[in-house]
Amino acid sequence: MAYRALDERSVVDYVRACSAMEAIFETGAALRAREVGDGNLNLVFIIENVADPEQSAVLKQALPYLRVAGESWPLTRERMRFETQALLKYNELTPGLVPRVYEHDQEMSLVIMEHLRKHQIMRKPLVARERFPRFVDQISSFVARVLFFTSDLYLSGLAKKTLMSEFINPHLCKIQEDFVFTNPYMESPENQWNPRIDAQVREVRANGALKLALAEMKAGYMTHAQALIHSDLHTGSIMVNERDTRVIDSEFAFYGPIGFDLGAILENLVLNHLSHYAHTPDPRARREYQAYLLDLVRSVWGEFARKFETLWIENNRGELVPEPYWDFPGGDDAFAEYRRRYMADLLRDTAGHGGAKMLRRMMGIVSIWDLTSIEDLDQRAVAERLAIRIGSRWVLERARLSSVEDLVGIVLEETRGVEEDLAG
Amino acid sequence: MAYRALDERSVVDYVRACSAMEAIFETGAALRAREVGDGNLNLVFIIENVADPEQSAVLKQALPYLRVAGESWPLTRERMRFETQALLKYNELTPGLVPRVYEHDQEMSLVIMEHLRKHQIMRKPLVARERFPRFVDQISSFVARVLFFTSDLYLSGLAKKTLMSEFINPHLCKIQEDFVFTNPYMESPENQWNPRIDAQVREVRANGALKLALAEMKAGYMTHAQALIHSDLHTGSIMVNERDTRVIDSEFAFYGPIGFDLGAILENLVLNHLSHYAHTPDPRARREYQAYLLDLVRSVWGEFARKFETLWIENNRGELVPEPYWDFPGGDDAFAEYRRRYMADLLRDTAGHGGAKMLRRMMGIVSIWDLTSIEDLDQRAVAERLAIRIGSRWVLERARLSSVEDLVGIVLEETRGVEEDLAG
Repeated sequence: MAYRALDERSVVDYVRACSAMEAIFETGAALRAREVGDGNLNLVFIIENVADPEQSAVLKQALPYLRVAGESWPLTRERMRFETQALLKYNELTPGLVPRVYEHDQEMSLVIMEHLRKHQIMRKPLVARERFPRFVDQISSFVARVLFFTSDLYLSGLAKKTLMSEFINPHLCKIQEDFVFTNPYMESPENQWNPRIDAQVREVRANGALKLALAEMKAGYMTHAQALIHSDLHTGSIMVNERDTRVIDSEFAFYGPIGFDLGAILENLVLNHLSHYAHTPDPRARREYQAYLLDLVRSVWGEFARKFETLWIENNRGELVPEPYWDFPGGDDAFAEYRRRYMADLLRDTAGHGGAKMLRRMMGIVSIWDLTSIEDLDQRAVAERLAIRIGSRWVLERARLSSVEDLVGIVLEETRGVEEDLAG
Repeated sequence: MAYRALDERSVVDYVRACSAMEAIFETGAALRAREVGDGNLNLVFIIENVADPEQSAVLKQALPYLRVAGESWPLTRERMRFETQALLKYNELTPGLVPRVYEHDQEMSLVIMEHLRKHQIMRKPLVARERFPRFVDQISSFVARVLFFTSDLYLSGLAKKTLMSEFINPHLCKIQEDFVFTNPYMESPENQWNPRIDAQVREVRANGALKLALAEMKAGYMTHAQALIHSDLHTGSIMVNERDTRVIDSEFAFYGPIGFDLGAILENLVLNHLSHYAHTPDPRARREYQAYLLDLVRSVWGEFARKFETLWIENNRGELVPEPYWDFPGGDDAFAEYRRRYMADLLRDTAGHGGAKMLRRMMGIVSIWDLTSIEDLDQRAVAERLAIRIGSRWVLERARLSSVEDLVGIVLEETRGVEEDLAG
């Protein structure tokens, strides 16, 4: 059926008529809907059984464009195609770690999916110092499985390129290209930053070595088609509870560098860590929770690397390097060394992309709630200055980083003495 | 019209009816055709005006598949689409350096193009020690212009990705992936080599460090979408005469690493250089011509690099790094350093890909005429052993190579003393 934007009334008729209806709701159920999206990018409806609101689903429909930065971006409804395609691929590769898809309709640019009623976006509970005992295991499985099974390490050359051709996603890529790697570091009208860090922002924008390194990371983002990356995997795209982790909002998905996804997760954990200098005045509670967050950084990387390499060894059927290639005396060692170098490259890329994303949050179009929720601008600036130093070093020093402990080490070095300053 | 393979009779009717007819031949001309292709991949017809054979054109039509290595490769007629698309793009970016296209017909998988009656495939005249005074200028313009104008240094992100999506070329990519980077270095039934270099071939296949480096080059070939590369740019894909250079056979074109094209040219010049130990028994004539060939290696790279960087400076409108990004005190220096590093990466990539291609010619499915035309297997082995050493070093030592003189230096080091051995 031809595209038309739904409203709270028409969405109920749409769902009642759709073939997934019986999989979600009991036969003949009366439904009600409410729109809960922010209205910028998508309409998001929650549809419930009036008699039993536990029976519910989410319907997400793309609007034809997004107004952002005072400029109209040509974000066509195609982006819903990318979100849906990625969700379907994720459901195939990592069922249970993303919302289930009940139905999708390309003409209408919509998808009907599982309503995650008992999950929350990860940012807020991290600010509230909650802990998620299964997060490391689950998020590392998500990235390891999706990235491995869509890479040339697993797929045939033909299958990889066919999948890649379905994920050429130029408009959404451009948003990240501009807003992660370019505009924050030069004059651009949409940039925003805390006036208290004006000097640091100016320093970044005039730091030739850093900008050169950021341009190199951008070249990687634009040209390195390594695996199907989510490409917006911050803690606002992750929903959690005590038992469960789900990745959402996959409209940016395309074939890009693996390190961009890992960098997003690690960087967001570090920024949350820094936010606690303001959010958690009690030094002991703060230290404990910050230590927990750095352990998450270590173990998300560590578990990702362990699982990714295990998948590789156990499913080594991609065409990049077929098994018989290593069939010679010493071949096992050569293959092990190849894997070691591959993982070391991923870590350096993770640092570079994570650092870039940390910096852009300080001086680009969007900050993150962990920091913007700090109302005192001086307090906020403490965290932001640290983030600028840590992000800059992750980018600039990436070539020498050889373990996740080196990334954490930079956080520890840069935050040394902050406790005393706050106490004094 | 539906696809049907043409023959020498039906091709004349086809050409007479096509709209380009009048652009090629005088009105009412009687035409004759002969098939000159090797019949494996494509039909190639030369169509002439009976009354004036100088009026002629080439019609190239893809056959539905290719039988190679005893196995049927799914080389669909799509490859003619890639060849034609690339030819059209080349005609736009470097008119005069490729055959003109008169007409193309996707349904029929054919293209009608300029007949290069006065050019010859470059291999043979290089073996005959001919010189081509305009080759360096022309081939360097071809690669510099095509690679620059299709890269993120010139195009918008949207335009680059749109063009890239038209050149997802998995079947032809697979041929290079398998036959350049993988199969030659392991047991594979289609491999062929001179029995005199059996020991050296076995050494390569058991050299863990080398195979690891080759696997890294392959990963780059499979994932690094830098520019629209020709991807088969050896001296058999270049036609020359005293005044003119033309690039042909572009069916492998896709978005890949720039160094693969440069590597192909340089590597073929080096292999031709080595072939003269057999082809040119006179030491003085040999030395002079080998020096000429190494000067071609130096100046093809040098002119490519100079022109590419000049195009970049003068047409810096790609979205990778927009001009205003460098607008800060010291920004010019940072931009210059960025370009310097970019070009240095290209040189290292050129060495790695060139080295891989040199090796595969010694032990894979296809050698090159420069060497196979040496009938004495011992003489041929002299060149081949040198090629294996040079190719291995280009691949293994690429990280330390910082100028084309370093690549030439490896050739000079490895060939030192060969003169004396031959004389002795």
